[in-house]
Amino acid sequence: VTDAAVYTGRAAVRAGILVTGTEVLTGIISDRNGPWLSEQLLDLGVDAAMIEIVGDRREDLRTALEQMAATGVAVIVTSGGLGPTADDLTAEVVGGFCGREMVLDAALEERIGEIIERALQRWPDADREALRAANRKQAVIPNGATVLEPRGTAPGLVVPPAKGGAGPTVVVLPGPPGELQPMWADAVASDAFRLAIAGATEYRRAIVRLFGIPEAAIANTLRAADAAGLRLRALEITTCLRRGEIEISTRFEPAAEADYDALVEFIATRHGKRLFSRNGSTIDEQVASGFLRAGETIALAESCTGGLLAARLTERPGSSAYVVGGAVVYSDEAKSDLAGVEPSLIAEHGAVSVEVARALAEGARRRFGTSLGVGITGIAGPGGGTPEKPVGLVCFSVVHGAAGAATSSRALTRSRNLPGERAAVRERATTVAMHLIARVLGGEGD
Amino acid sequence: VTDAAVYTGRAAVRAGILVTGTEVLTGIISDRNGPWLSEQLLDLGVDAAMIEIVGDRREDLRTALEQMAATGVAVIVTSGGLGPTADDLTAEVVGGFCGREMVLDAALEERIGEIIERALQRWPDADREALRAANRKQAVIPNGATVLEPRGTAPGLVVPPAKGGAGPTVVVLPGPPGELQPMWADAVASDAFRLAIAGATEYRRAIVRLFGIPEAAIANTLRAADAAGLRLRALEITTCLRRGEIEISTRFEPAAEADYDALVEFIATRHGKRLFSRNGSTIDEQVASGFLRAGETIALAESCTGGLLAARLTERPGSSAYVVGGAVVYSDEAKSDLAGVEPSLIAEHGAVSVEVARALAEGARRRFGTSLGVGITGIAGPGGGTPEKPVGLVCFSVVHGAAGAATSSRALTRSRNLPGERAAVRERATTVAMHLIARVLGGEGD
Repeated sequence: VTDAAVYTGRAAVRAGILVTGTEVLTGIISDRNGPWLSEQLLDLGVDAAMIEIVGDRREDLRTALEQMAATGVAVIVTSGGLGPTADDLTAEVVGGFCGREMVLDAALEERIGEIIERALQRWPDADREALRAANRKQAVIPNGATVLEPRGTAPGLVVPPAKGGAGPTVVVLPGPPGELQPMWADAVASDAFRLAIAGATEYRRAIVRLFGIPEAAIANTLRAADAAGLRLRALEITTCLRRGEIEISTRFEPAAEADYDALVEFIATRHGKRLFSRNGSTIDEQVASGFLRAGETIALAESCTGGLLAARLTERPGSSAYVVGGAVVYSDEAKSDLAGVEPSLIAEHGAVSVEVARALAEGARRRFGTSLGVGITGIAGPGGGTPEKPVGLVCFSVVHGAAGAATSSRALTRSRNLPGERAAVRERATTVAMHLIARVLGGEGD
Repeated sequence: VTDAAVYTGRAAVRAGILVTGTEVLTGIISDRNGPWLSEQLLDLGVDAAMIEIVGDRREDLRTALEQMAATGVAVIVTSGGLGPTADDLTAEVVGGFCGREMVLDAALEERIGEIIERALQRWPDADREALRAANRKQAVIPNGATVLEPRGTAPGLVVPPAKGGAGPTVVVLPGPPGELQPMWADAVASDAFRLAIAGATEYRRAIVRLFGIPEAAIANTLRAADAAGLRLRALEITTCLRRGEIEISTRFEPAAEADYDALVEFIATRHGKRLFSRNGSTIDEQVASGFLRAGETIALAESCTGGLLAARLTERPGSSAYVVGGAVVYSDEAKSDLAGVEPSLIAEHGAVSVEVARALAEGARRRFGTSLGVGITGIAGPGGGTPEKPVGLVCFSVVHGAAGAATSSRALTRSRNLPGERAAVRERATTVAMHLIARVLGGEGD
């Protein structure tokens, strides 16, 4: 366990997750479905016992199913291998594993046919007959399985063990996350799945986030909460350091809600404003809603982050309502020309200084006529560090004033020594800036 | 199989990869070691049969080892669970699995002690005795195992089956990738590992990359190569669509080198300049070396990519030698004010047009006094699309001229309809721009 502390919980209904695909096994594509399914299962009170990745080989698929069943899991969820080509084997192997004959579902074949007809209208050159034949295969399913309607062309399946047979129920889902995720909701709603996980404990999950304290401080806080008599045993608490923020994710039974609330209050009392999110919202969401609520606008002048903060702010649809523009000012000349930083200021304090960060923020605000301005200048490394200004030193300024006004009315200007390599320093710097922006939007300022 | 076509190869020595850690199993941390180890094994002629993730539970670890052994793998590689705390169980469970007694390695304990003493000099407040005791546990290893020197504090192990016993050799590595990767090289060099994979075929691996053709075209090319009599059976070819580029990764025995060379020539003849990398180099590497070789400089004016291209160009250490600066010009006013685009040009052609892209590129080049200028304007979505200018339409221009000269001497200006959602359109647009930059650096221009 490196940077996460996990309080493991009680025994629960267990499940296995089987990810198929040679391209995943050989590292060409990285799997996102296994961890996602594991989190979804946790929320249903089902513990994932293992996530296993195997290639598109019949024997390997069958062996994995049998070995998972041997560990006593109640459910196996598979992803991938539902396409129309010959190496897509999952439905057939699962049918055999569950002791069910493969049959053509004529109504399903027709529905898949309609999906293909619609697709053919966009690709008129495609070979219609070949496509229809390939997709007929996708309508051959284990007898008695529940069909999950396709989001692409591949249907999913919930396959219980054959009558009189023992063993897990298998949920069969396609590989693309955009198809798998909505079909998972259908699987969870099915009678066959509900029956398979009967007896699972009902859980809630809640997340709070902190910024600006070391992870060790949270371990101390949890120990103090325990010593103060809080019933932490009723809670499964996971703490995790993500992009410089601490995320505390807690799973608990409904009866322990008061214990959870007491823990959040305890954290709030000890850490004050460092606890920036009690409802799981991210800093990106808070900044976006802060801009929209207040009708503020923002402009940036970035040096070491090289456009990363602008890219992060404009990630969200609708961000053009408040992001007016930005400047990437890598050279000293660009800092003066685009953001109006006096060359004498750079000569006196150096390009990486809180003075220049402040001037960049003021210059960005003035030039774009916005209410907020942000300046960032620092040393991302690996070169460029000195004993006085080491790699990782980043200076930030966020200023605020009436849009169009020449002078700002408040500002937060800070310098930080950020750990890690070039990419980590740049990434972490955008997070620091997001928190300063949120605080200025909230009315703070020196 | 969704966007990768895999030609599966012959039977080879097989291995299992076992990733341990509740924080990985529950999706809090995403595993990078499994896919990395799988690729490394492939290069040694060893096929990963499965990657399995289990939590920090003794029974689950032991069961996973036994089930992998039952599939006949020659080697199992584990990652994680080597720390000093009680839930770090891997060494002990592996020792039991291999039928070897756990013994204290006094020399190893001393070496770990020295590492801890050095660390203590940085954290003088730490509890020395508790640390020493916790780390003594890390020096207790299966009798007869080969020790891999620690990169953090945790030693790795190569553990053969006990004398007279059958079963796989187990390579035990720590979880942090920065420790695991150098220790993997030590493991591979050990006699115990070499013995375990004796009989594995020696392979080479090579990568070529194409840009600007649909993935189906590569499937056609491979079929044509087969029909033309190339010995594709001697090659294991994997094609994969990554960020809009097609990557063809091929594994082959040294004797098949001429067959591989023939395939690359075949691809080059059919696809010409679309084959932009014959040696596996990425477009980012090519652009960076192009700038450094030619002494060129670059400035950007980005609208829909919102700073992503500037961030991508400045990702590389040393990029400040050629990236002078950029402007993120989201609003029409910013396009005019920062990049000197005539408002009448926007009124006539619309902000998303090849004319405005060209003007942005010229404006960026002029304003920053660089030899190259880039302009990007488009509709990333989800809103803002029209029947004439749908979501995904992005216009690009890269211009080139003598630094400081008012007019450019050559330019590539293009528009593209990029597929996918907002994040995909923005990401793909930076890739298109990188390729246009590479072409202009190479002397192309309308």
